[in-house]
Amino acid sequence: MIALSPDDEHVVLINTFVVKPDRSEELLELLSRATEEAIRHLPGFLSANLHKSLDGTRVANYAQWRSVAALEMMYSNQQAQQHMKQAAALADSFEPILYTLRHASQTRATPST
Amino acid sequence: MIALSPDDEHVVLINTFVVKPDRSEELLELLSRATEEAIRHLPGFLSANLHKSLDGTRVANYAQWRSVAALEMMYSNQQAQQHMKQAAALADSFEPILYTLRHASQTRATPST
Repeated sequence: MIALSPDDEHVVLINTFVVKPDRSEELLELLSRATEEAIRHLPGFLSANLHKSLDGTRVANYAQWRSVAALEMMYSNQQAQQHMKQAAALADSFEPILYTLRHASQTRATPST
Repeated sequence: MIALSPDDEHVVLINTFVVKPDRSEELLELLSRATEEAIRHLPGFLSANLHKSLDGTRVANYAQWRSVAALEMMYSNQQAQQHMKQAAALADSFEPILYTLRHASQTRATPST
């Protein structure tokens, strides 16, 4: 995870998958593999951070990209498309939402507190 | 934002607010203020990262906490509760989901790529 500044042009994709708990590990593994084998090598990739909810019903990817254009290029990449199809098949549904970072607060950044 | 390791006990709260676009800035400001004035000073707080979706219909907080116990203490804090009530009143709905980080991949961590 990269410490973005709210002043950058960077975008954040939070993709939340609703998944049956007994499929969540398989989905995590698929997304990890997709990240390592394909997505991280695409131009403009900054980070991908895969999470599993404590109740096992959600898997979320918090992904940082250099720009909207870079993210759109990823979407048009054939290998990435194939991985996304496989992920969609494992999940009940998924909702990718594109954000910009607006405010960041971090405990260790201000030693005076 | 702190670079968590998947081996840590840390938890990640992703709270997604659905909001009318013309209220999104007010919601962002309220959440920023709540973070700076109250939440960041609570024990176990690591970071809060506030995002606005490109279409203005979502505000998301990606918050890192040291443990589930620390997060529960925050929920029982009166000042935090008051801020959350105000945020809930501005949003159409919100969904806080508690995660653990399972896999992190970052472009600059592997200079060989």
